[in-house]
Amino acid sequence: MARPLCATILGRCLQCNYTPVQVVSPLISRLNASSAPSALSCIGLEKTQKMAFSSSARSNTNSQVSEPPACLLKPLEVPNKLLMGPGPSNPPPRVLAAGALPLLGHMHPEFFEVLDDVKAGIQYVFQTKNEWTYAISGSGHAAMEAAVVNLLEIGDVALVCQNGIWGGRIAEMVDRNGSIVKKLVRPMGEVFSLEEIEQGLKEHKPKLVFVTYGESSSGSAQPLEGLGDLCRKYDALLLVDSVAIAGGAPLFMDAWNIDVLYSGSQKVMGAPPATSPISFNQRARDVIANRKTKVRSYYLDAAELANYWGCDENPRRYHHTCLVSSIYALREGLARLAEQGLEKSWQEHRKCAEMLYEGLEKMGLEMWIKDKAIRNPCVTTIRVPEGVEWKKVVDHLMKQHKIEIAGALGKDLLGEIWRIGIMGHNCTPENVNRTLQALKEALDLYWKK
Amino acid sequence: MARPLCATILGRCLQCNYTPVQVVSPLISRLNASSAPSALSCIGLEKTQKMAFSSSARSNTNSQVSEPPACLLKPLEVPNKLLMGPGPSNPPPRVLAAGALPLLGHMHPEFFEVLDDVKAGIQYVFQTKNEWTYAISGSGHAAMEAAVVNLLEIGDVALVCQNGIWGGRIAEMVDRNGSIVKKLVRPMGEVFSLEEIEQGLKEHKPKLVFVTYGESSSGSAQPLEGLGDLCRKYDALLLVDSVAIAGGAPLFMDAWNIDVLYSGSQKVMGAPPATSPISFNQRARDVIANRKTKVRSYYLDAAELANYWGCDENPRRYHHTCLVSSIYALREGLARLAEQGLEKSWQEHRKCAEMLYEGLEKMGLEMWIKDKAIRNPCVTTIRVPEGVEWKKVVDHLMKQHKIEIAGALGKDLLGEIWRIGIMGHNCTPENVNRTLQALKEALDLYWKK
Repeated sequence: MARPLCATILGRCLQCNYTPVQVVSPLISRLNASSAPSALSCIGLEKTQKMAFSSSARSNTNSQVSEPPACLLKPLEVPNKLLMGPGPSNPPPRVLAAGALPLLGHMHPEFFEVLDDVKAGIQYVFQTKNEWTYAISGSGHAAMEAAVVNLLEIGDVALVCQNGIWGGRIAEMVDRNGSIVKKLVRPMGEVFSLEEIEQGLKEHKPKLVFVTYGESSSGSAQPLEGLGDLCRKYDALLLVDSVAIAGGAPLFMDAWNIDVLYSGSQKVMGAPPATSPISFNQRARDVIANRKTKVRSYYLDAAELANYWGCDENPRRYHHTCLVSSIYALREGLARLAEQGLEKSWQEHRKCAEMLYEGLEKMGLEMWIKDKAIRNPCVTTIRVPEGVEWKKVVDHLMKQHKIEIAGALGKDLLGEIWRIGIMGHNCTPENVNRTLQALKEALDLYWKK
Repeated sequence: MARPLCATILGRCLQCNYTPVQVVSPLISRLNASSAPSALSCIGLEKTQKMAFSSSARSNTNSQVSEPPACLLKPLEVPNKLLMGPGPSNPPPRVLAAGALPLLGHMHPEFFEVLDDVKAGIQYVFQTKNEWTYAISGSGHAAMEAAVVNLLEIGDVALVCQNGIWGGRIAEMVDRNGSIVKKLVRPMGEVFSLEEIEQGLKEHKPKLVFVTYGESSSGSAQPLEGLGDLCRKYDALLLVDSVAIAGGAPLFMDAWNIDVLYSGSQKVMGAPPATSPISFNQRARDVIANRKTKVRSYYLDAAELANYWGCDENPRRYHHTCLVSSIYALREGLARLAEQGLEKSWQEHRKCAEMLYEGLEKMGLEMWIKDKAIRNPCVTTIRVPEGVEWKKVVDHLMKQHKIEIAGALGKDLLGEIWRIGIMGHNCTPENVNRTLQALKEALDLYWKK
């Protein structure tokens, strides 16, 4: 039942004149009953304020507190699924447990140590010594936006290599930032040659070049070597999206001269979606330091974040309330990678991808990307055979086996591909086999050859 | 030991001409040893690409994988503290446990149900029926920035009422957004009268008025009634920050005609910092719908988020990867409030605040804000007595009792105040007493009267 409430704020009577509150609704009486006696009397406002707030109060005298929503009075229950889609992947139990450790304050020295661990872990996964290496407090899109708003000012030109959804996404961010997008476009599943990127550099003289290393919508992996050198030759920054691949395939930020690199917590790193690793090298920092205008976002200001993360010589300042529990989880996901060793992780992802390809081909399925060398080992795209309704297969796996595989992301390849992700903790031969078996069962039902 | 690695990407040889890889580093040999045989041979690139990537590879042949950071090879351990500062507060165990439930995908129907629960919970805490009610994927600053970038365009004027750090913060965001800041300023601990705000409205004709309901840096609570009506009279939107108070004191978004209201997960709602509830009424939505320019942030685009959260008539679109585990935790924090009942929560916060005032005054301490009616019951500011070094007291509580209380936020009141927070799960007479006892012990040591 909704109950009437006097609109009195914090026990102050806004309707009376320096007199104790006499006529109040039942709720306020109850509120005050357990308060110190002083709360019961009007405490004498300074005249102006009194005047100011007294008239408004009357109109709200009949405010009612609505009932608590029934849905929240039931316990939270979620099914346990095997997430073999393009992400998020299942975090290992130790990562989920880490996220439930006692909360620390975002300015506590013990939490700064955890931040330092995370920084070291990202440096390791990215293979960089960059001082400005940390995690954005948001999922992958936030890191993408952080890169855009910090590196580009109004009117700056970005050359976006688009061969899937991510080029389109960043193009939208660049445009919203008031910067100018020039696109190189290739069909989904193909990658860009240095030659065509050089052509774009010559033509558009961009401040920044964007490529997606591991395309989760198409399953491709863009070769990166030489690209950093090429961008330097044309005085452009190289920005790379590695959300759906970092930790699962060779990646050498420093050796490959990548200027800005970002990823996400919820793929190979095996933490829940919440934080997104990013790193800026000195070239990128110089560009930021020489901006003519302030970064448009406070929340994503790279220099402020660098200070908070202890990456400059100044004492750490409170910038925003960092996602403490999510950082614990990311730390634990990175620790798992550090224990396993990066090379071993790359090797396991490659091995499981090969297993998957082989199993799929045995069923008569075709990979969307013919050239194995440009496939992202973490996200495999499979051609949906003619006559098969892609969704029936996806639904069968989910309903019968609680296994997630995905269809296309976006409309371009809708109905044409499935996507299977093998990432982090989920990257085991057992999971590949479970997925293959479930898929075979579905195809036996829905693929009439 | 760092090991040499051939810079070969994904098993493709970038250095040879259509021949099997012969000369590779030990690591690549190991990588390939467990891969399918096909990974060992160069798979015949299209000529242009081959040319493009072959030259760059050589320069990286000696790339080495750095060693895993030693800090990550140690287990994560965090102390268990009682967080009686201005936030975050300790989440109840059930909230931390909810955050460790099995991960769902951000587009799974079961997760949409959790989002619906959260939406209903925020509507309840905010006392609103607004359709556009959801949580931003980031901590409080992200919600503040979301409000700014969605409501204001370049050149729009915002009237910022600043009586603590939050007015300053939003002013910076408004400025970064290319909008114009006009300020009403009051000393920390004071609040604004309707009269002076009306004066500001007349003078600056702002599109938006910002006030902080519960100021965590000063401990004040701004009376809100009548302010919404006043803003309507001058055709301005009313934006209210309720991060450090929502759930802990009466708040009626609809009845008080607040146009946009936001809060944070980590205070009274008792979830870890990660998500920030926000709500837009129809007036605010109309302003957004009538924008001449796109919202500058993709990540914080209110209309896109509304769609993802199922708040419009269209099917939910993938916008960004929502913070799944953090949403579980927020859901559980909101469920706790729903079970307790809002009025009971307000009552408990008021009761504990009164207990705290009384206990502090018994020790001879003075409240920073004399007028009890404009104190935020969730964050109490206490005057540091002359001759007492504020930090010694704070450190004593932490070192001897693992209890957090805080000094000032920012420089204005540095050394002049302590801040004690009583929020959500921590809002119990036991915690107030523990804090008072520890404080008394510290004062006995450091306050020589």
